[in-house]
Amino acid sequence: MDFDTITKTDLDLLEVYLRGSISAGSPLYRDVIDAMNYSLLSGGKRVRALFCMEVCRALGGKVEAALPFAAAVEMVHAYSLIHDDLPCMDDDDLRRGKPSNHKVFGEANALLAGDGLLTHAFYTLATADTGVRQGLLAVKLLAEAAGCHGMIGGQVIDLGWENRDTPAEVLEQMHRLKTGALIAVAAQLGAVAAGHTGDEELEILGDFARMVGLAFQIVDDILDATGDEQKLGKPIGSDAQQGKTTFITLYGLERSQEAVRQLTSDAIEKLYQVVAPESGKYLASLCWRLTDREN
Amino acid sequence: MDFDTITKTDLDLLEVYLRGSISAGSPLYRDVIDAMNYSLLSGGKRVRALFCMEVCRALGGKVEAALPFAAAVEMVHAYSLIHDDLPCMDDDDLRRGKPSNHKVFGEANALLAGDGLLTHAFYTLATADTGVRQGLLAVKLLAEAAGCHGMIGGQVIDLGWENRDTPAEVLEQMHRLKTGALIAVAAQLGAVAAGHTGDEELEILGDFARMVGLAFQIVDDILDATGDEQKLGKPIGSDAQQGKTTFITLYGLERSQEAVRQLTSDAIEKLYQVVAPESGKYLASLCWRLTDREN
Repeated sequence: MDFDTITKTDLDLLEVYLRGSISAGSPLYRDVIDAMNYSLLSGGKRVRALFCMEVCRALGGKVEAALPFAAAVEMVHAYSLIHDDLPCMDDDDLRRGKPSNHKVFGEANALLAGDGLLTHAFYTLATADTGVRQGLLAVKLLAEAAGCHGMIGGQVIDLGWENRDTPAEVLEQMHRLKTGALIAVAAQLGAVAAGHTGDEELEILGDFARMVGLAFQIVDDILDATGDEQKLGKPIGSDAQQGKTTFITLYGLERSQEAVRQLTSDAIEKLYQVVAPESGKYLASLCWRLTDREN
Repeated sequence: MDFDTITKTDLDLLEVYLRGSISAGSPLYRDVIDAMNYSLLSGGKRVRALFCMEVCRALGGKVEAALPFAAAVEMVHAYSLIHDDLPCMDDDDLRRGKPSNHKVFGEANALLAGDGLLTHAFYTLATADTGVRQGLLAVKLLAEAAGCHGMIGGQVIDLGWENRDTPAEVLEQMHRLKTGALIAVAAQLGAVAAGHTGDEELEILGDFARMVGLAFQIVDDILDATGDEQKLGKPIGSDAQQGKTTFITLYGLERSQEAVRQLTSDAIEKLYQVVAPESGKYLASLCWRLTDREN
């Protein structure tokens, strides 16, 4: 199968799984279920799910075994976006070109929909048909990645340095936690779903995904500075307008572009420490496509 | 040991455990750690933890085995109070006589502290030294109880019927989910910690705790209508002032008081289906004290 066919097959499997994952429950609290599904089923690149499913396959597992884990990571991602968009956080009215969750369902329902998705992610791990040892390890890894020393910590750093010059090491730590932790755990859960639970292997896979994640963030900064508004689907130059510290303001365009290439090729080298190049072809292509993109 | 000694011993164990449960992490995100601990360590009756620890003991387990489970339930309870107090929800400035979380740390940090506590609850279950099968069952039960078909659903019902006459069956469903689900799972996790994982036994224990929880809520309504402000530590009559539907407005004072007695004695009868009366003495006393209180 070629790259696009694999991607489409995986994403179709995932969408069917996600659509069936939250039962309707009582009409008395229908609002929050609708709000949860609104964000969970609103698409996006599903990068985390693809990493999870394809690491599983590359390590000899079935992608279907990774589905509940991939879905759980996407639930955590969706929750984090809902809470990020709330007025007390980034106060964003739009998300992927559609009204953000609280614009449609109100702040209270959006807050609770985020809480509900986070909780449902752990329910999904706990009821996955993966074996109890792997299930509990998945809970631990996801809770660590999404928790106060992971994604939430990164969010706090981001808020704390708004409108201030951010030192390079703080910016990197922020990205490492805010987005890197969840991408890393996506890859790790793919391995766990394939029955690979050794610390060293999981650490290498985490490093691999974190590097790609960081490269992805730098590309975001580059596109905001130099992208094509039509292809990007949103106005460019917003970072500069807000006086935000980015990789571009810290290192300039050329060094940032070089860093993207270096990080991506280092990441793939990492991957090949635990995955045979033949089995890792899709993941390597995915890395290059994520970092050589126009939107 | 007498009732007060057991209570104090349990609560001391719990406080030490909770105090040690969130590591400091990086100074870069210290704010959110402080905000999490502010609410987690601010006391309260710790009813849920006591149910968890003492059900465990009553079924032949060691209370220490139930500690991580009890702590996880208290984390979920603390998170739910932080989010409930936010301006977009109940907008409460005070909690247990102290400024609420967002008044001290700001809305963004309070939101994230709640997210962090919810996530840390699952981390705590996943790293408990209880055996993987029991650990994963605890994750499933807690996620179910705290999730959209549990506590969150109840919160949505509560919000949806504000300032409207609430039918009796909706009020009961609201309490069953909003507070009953978490009390029920506290008792169930106590059993799981003691190695009792059978569906039937867990269901009976859930029913037991839900009944006490409902009685507890009715007592809240009674105290708001008839309590002593000095003993209660807060003004009475706020329900009537807000035109809220309560058990008093639905059934009157006398029938409500009778319901409390009936529910409590039915609950204890339930308990004795799975616990020998000799082992259940503390829990029975706890039920009577929770429903025969002045604050």
